Amino acid sequence: MVVAGIDAGSTAVKLVLHDENRFGFWQRPSGWSPGETARELLQEALTAWGRTKEELAYICGTGYGRVNLPFLDSAVTEIACHARGAVHLRPGVRLVIDIGGQDAKGILVSSTGRVIDFVMNDKCAAGTGRFLAVMAHALGMEVADMGACIPGSVEAQPQPINAMCTVFAESEVIGLLNQGIDRRAIIAGLHQSVARRVSAMVARLGAPGPVLFTGGVARNAGVRAALEKALGCPVEVKEQSPFAGAIGAALIAREKAAG
Amino acid sequence: MVVAGIDAGSTAVKLVLHDENRFGFWQRPSGWSPGETARELLQEALTAWGRTKEELAYICGTGYGRVNLPFLDSAVTEIACHARGAVHLRPGVRLVIDIGGQDAKGILVSSTGRVIDFVMNDKCAAGTGRFLAVMAHALGMEVADMGACIPGSVEAQPQPINAMCTVFAESEVIGLLNQGIDRRAIIAGLHQSVARRVSAMVARLGAPGPVLFTGGVARNAGVRAALEKALGCPVEVKEQSPFAGAIGAALIAREKAAG
Ligand code: SF4
Repeated sequence: MVVAGIDAGSTAVKLVLHDENRFGFWQRPSGWSPGETARELLQEALTAWGRTKEELAYICGTGYGRVNLPFLDSAVTEIACHARGAVHLRPGVRLVIDIGGQDAKGILVSSTGRVIDFVMNDKCAAGTGRFLAVMAHALGMEVADMGACIPGSVEAQPQPINAMCTVFAESEVIGLLNQGIDRRAIIAGLHQSVARRVSAMVARLGAPGPVLFTGGVARNAGVRAALEKALGCPVEVKEQSPFAGAIGAALIAREKAAG
Repeated sequence: MVVAGIDAGSTAVKLVLHDENRFGFWQRPSGWSPGETARELLQEALTAWGRTKEELAYICGTGYGRVNLPFLDSAVTEIACHARGAVHLRPGVRLVIDIGGQDAKGILVSSTGRVIDFVMNDKCAAGTGRFLAVMAHALGMEVADMGACIPGSVEAQPQPINAMCTVFAESEVIGLLNQGIDRRAIIAGLHQSVARRVSAMVARLGAPGPVLFTGGVARNAGVRAALEKALGCPVEVKEQSPFAGAIGAALIAREKAAG
């Protein structure tokens, strides 16, 4: 039995195919029509696995753009899917920190994998992937390349960024560049800024056990290192961390198809 | 006796010369060095009045950039200067709403002109002139031209802007333009957004009497109309509203020079 989980985020659509033996992972930038992107991605994935749409037992969707996916069998909240996917990726996880293209979430999970509480910021671009994308543009680089600059390494003593607001921080970064401040120090400061904002947000949840970092920004090793420093505890990242929501959706799809 | 008041804002430096008989007004974009800009502006103003620097009895400064003005006799907080200037512009005023290039303030003034309480936002670009500047850029127009679009007029039924955040609202505006939504409706929606944010901020101060709108954004008739709607009361604007802080600084300078 094959099922699909789709996480239609603001920046990228993530798709997971799942059968008895394996998981498959695909992603693509959301573009102007996340619905169309998801449909194409699904076709590509099915072709790769040599399956047809008729063989798909269930499709479960989540994420910002799930309302634009008419072909879903059901849509599930992001919190439920992300928690489910995180527990699958890291059994025993207690705190999930998810930083996506335009939001950030903290999810407190019980020792049995149930959602106890969560906090979320989807109103302010600060502390989200969008903050980093705006800064990458100001720095004239790709956002994917920022992560290579890890705070604490010799070449990157963080330059503190005073402004919390994305708009004001962008001006600050331009000012720092004009002053000739090392670009790597600025990047490290930006990672610190994201980590501070997110760690302040999740503070009330506590971190009673393993912390897993998920979402697209989990690919950024600099933010991870800054989060560890801000939280004062290890922050784990799995290779499939950006797919946590889609994995959760696929697992829920399998349950629904079975039940 | 001639005195000067300087309001070194993030966007523009405003200068007021004041003698027994009159006030004179000058302003210039702050540029990279507000201190240098203020010095040039002061020279220009003195020349226009046929005075020398030696004849200046006192220079009082305020605003974001006041720390960069080494030639001041004293620096005074923005709240004190804005309140003082507002009471001068509109005797009897009880609530001053000041929206500048990158902050917004509400000041509650007693019937005798003393500051009772104030609220301020200088952390988030939403609800400030910066929000409008970012949107003007997205709309491909000058921020000074946005004000001509007054909500409530037939051609400008506001298109609601859902995102409060400047960064997310910018994306929303670009999306609305791509959908072919009338630019004037978008502008009216943006004015509404600023007015809602600022009116929510000043709500706890109340408006026990006349309301005066000051700061650079007071030139925008659309924001003024939207503020009147959001507050449910008249909002006055004076020709010299953008100079309120500098007028206050000049009046304080005269007192200090005299006392
Ligand atoms: S602080 Fe900046 S990034 Fe955050 S909501 Fe305000 S404008 Fe947006």
